[in-house]
Amino acid sequence: MSTLTINTRRFLQDMETLSQIGATPQGGVNRPCFSQAHLEARAWFRQRSNEADLELRIDSAGNHSAILRQEGASQSLLVGSHLDSVPFGGRYDGALGVVSALEVIRAVKDAGLRLPCHLEVIDFTDEEGHHLPYLGSRALAGFIEPDEFQQPIHGRPKFETGLALAGLTEEGILAAKRNPASLAGYLELHIEQGSRLATADMQIGIVQAITGIRSYHLLFLGKANHAGTTPMQGRQDAGLGASAFRLAAREIALQSAPDCVVNVGYMNFSPGALNVIPSQVETGLEIRSTNEASMDALEAALLAQAHKEAQRFDLGLEIQPHPRATPIHMHAEARAAISESAQALGLRAMEMPSGAGHDAQSLAKLTRAGMLFVPSAGGISHSPYEFTPPEDCVNGANVLLNAALRLAGHL
Amino acid sequence: MSTLTINTRRFLQDMETLSQIGATPQGGVNRPCFSQAHLEARAWFRQRSNEADLELRIDSAGNHSAILRQEGASQSLLVGSHLDSVPFGGRYDGALGVVSALEVIRAVKDAGLRLPCHLEVIDFTDEEGHHLPYLGSRALAGFIEPDEFQQPIHGRPKFETGLALAGLTEEGILAAKRNPASLAGYLELHIEQGSRLATADMQIGIVQAITGIRSYHLLFLGKANHAGTTPMQGRQDAGLGASAFRLAAREIALQSAPDCVVNVGYMNFSPGALNVIPSQVETGLEIRSTNEASMDALEAALLAQAHKEAQRFDLGLEIQPHPRATPIHMHAEARAAISESAQALGLRAMEMPSGAGHDAQSLAKLTRAGMLFVPSAGGISHSPYEFTPPEDCVNGANVLLNAALRLAGHL
Repeated sequence: MSTLTINTRRFLQDMETLSQIGATPQGGVNRPCFSQAHLEARAWFRQRSNEADLELRIDSAGNHSAILRQEGASQSLLVGSHLDSVPFGGRYDGALGVVSALEVIRAVKDAGLRLPCHLEVIDFTDEEGHHLPYLGSRALAGFIEPDEFQQPIHGRPKFETGLALAGLTEEGILAAKRNPASLAGYLELHIEQGSRLATADMQIGIVQAITGIRSYHLLFLGKANHAGTTPMQGRQDAGLGASAFRLAAREIALQSAPDCVVNVGYMNFSPGALNVIPSQVETGLEIRSTNEASMDALEAALLAQAHKEAQRFDLGLEIQPHPRATPIHMHAEARAAISESAQALGLRAMEMPSGAGHDAQSLAKLTRAGMLFVPSAGGISHSPYEFTPPEDCVNGANVLLNAALRLAGHL
Repeated sequence: MSTLTINTRRFLQDMETLSQIGATPQGGVNRPCFSQAHLEARAWFRQRSNEADLELRIDSAGNHSAILRQEGASQSLLVGSHLDSVPFGGRYDGALGVVSALEVIRAVKDAGLRLPCHLEVIDFTDEEGHHLPYLGSRALAGFIEPDEFQQPIHGRPKFETGLALAGLTEEGILAAKRNPASLAGYLELHIEQGSRLATADMQIGIVQAITGIRSYHLLFLGKANHAGTTPMQGRQDAGLGASAFRLAAREIALQSAPDCVVNVGYMNFSPGALNVIPSQVETGLEIRSTNEASMDALEAALLAQAHKEAQRFDLGLEIQPHPRATPIHMHAEARAAISESAQALGLRAMEMPSGAGHDAQSLAKLTRAGMLFVPSAGGISHSPYEFTPPEDCVNGANVLLNAALRLAGHL
């Protein structure tokens, strides 16, 4: 089976150039959506699109596309990711997917291939949710709720300023939906953000499904009192309930839900003084899995356990669920295209879940979506110390190229 | 055995009047040391001293005294507490001790008693440590370190402003030491700030000793990582170590140290996000007991446990001790004077430790010091909801009066 490969030098040069936009002293980038650095990165994308003689398209949600038109084609195969980063994040998360997609298109163009569909590199707006998570890809898929605009993560004024800087409007975002019939599929290359590939000595991860998320805000309610004068027995120490819950949550997940992960990322103690018994502890529980049934069972067990621990320590308990994300399965044809391409390139690949959310989950509602991962050194992400060796980036880009050709019906 | 009693109406009226100075909407008072309200409360004290025709003395640490001189006497028996409060505290903590002492002196004066020593009501500066804890009583006892002035709790500028408002200087504070030979003893009435008296159905607590304190700042060190993409097994979650330590500390204290209390008042998670594995948790451990040997044993067990939990969850651990407070025993003669007075008045009294620190601990280094408690409703203190029924306040003042007469050698 024939394989096409990318222009490695051009690809790595683009990765390097892009990493200088919003560069931070630790070697990462700081490009939150609509920041000066993010807008500069998008300007660089437009410039590179022009230089490659591609058609530039910016939709009303700000998503940037560079298109290689195919005569007579009626559908577009999208390939991309995002140029925004978390605050003080790394240079691979998102950027790798956009730069490799750009290289995929240029490689196809350079090779003079004729495909049955248009090829479109896409850079989505605000994947990281600096204002609203997956804003661009959800707008494209048509499931933004107008209500969301009232409560962006960092408040209305910052959101409004950001929209104005980017030349966008809320009406425009709501109108950015694309017709599923016009799409041939979507492919995204991303860093793994974990260490499963390294542990298994694999080069390519073929995403089976993107994780579902259930999360809760829990409030354990006790009674503040003097830590010296109050006998140990009569205390209503909210810290005990929260701590016992934290430990039990881990045990339950390890013992009964091997396909789920659980996190308790914060505990806020009130009043929070050395010599005062904590009257309340706010904490957050997050459950992730690609298996909805496992999440159902684990959620029920953990919430029951929270009530049990509250009762054990004579505490009140309030539980507030956050909006759910259901697991999203990648399309079988996209997975096959990735798998076959990795095999054709002689790369070690395995199927795996994505524990993080990605724009591919929005696209999966519209079209045949697929994702592939390359290893993250040390499993580090959302950090300036994020690192994926150049050879792994190149491997990913080559698999992306060949998978795109397969999904486009060329191979 | 004869007993003298206070003027109940005058005493309760003074409690009421004083509670209006710095009154807060919830019914408490806000009189941090050197605040406008605190200075007003001291002005009120001077006025009441004048009205009672007592000799006013303000020492160079700002301690206010109202003195009933006894001809031919060479020693003074001090009776008092403090007029400052914690921010937004209650109307009993400190105030009860000063107002009852004032009433004790007036009752002695009204009765025309002749005593073998001068009687002196004393209101100490900054018991609550808004700037430096037990500032006035430690200055009187001569164990303020000049270095302390460089690091007052709320910073130098606030401390300097406070001193200026009160007309005090650091040199003056260091020079406020009194000669132990001039003192006959010290008595202090205070609210219990706990619920032991109520639990035992007692009216008066005779303090055996004021608690010692050992405290530590602990830092559990893990590794921040993505909560979705990082497998459960490889995590270094600082929250697990801190939570396990919290629970184990309680179990160890309950099982092996019944005469100690233990508190973990705060846990600060970093980075503290729902979807990030906590990289570090700062937490605080406090051990209190009047039994030094028990504290030694418990401290050793708890610090060993902290290391054990850190190891169990693959975490680093740093432990920083805070300065210690050793347990301070009340004088046997002062305890006897209180006990005999309670008995003579037909009140149910029991010996008990003080879990909180008090000015009496400073005085104990100089002279025969004693303390008595009256019940705190619900064990609540350092709160606007602090409450001690009037009859308990009156009982305490009557015991204080008769204990003072006994310690002065009159009864």
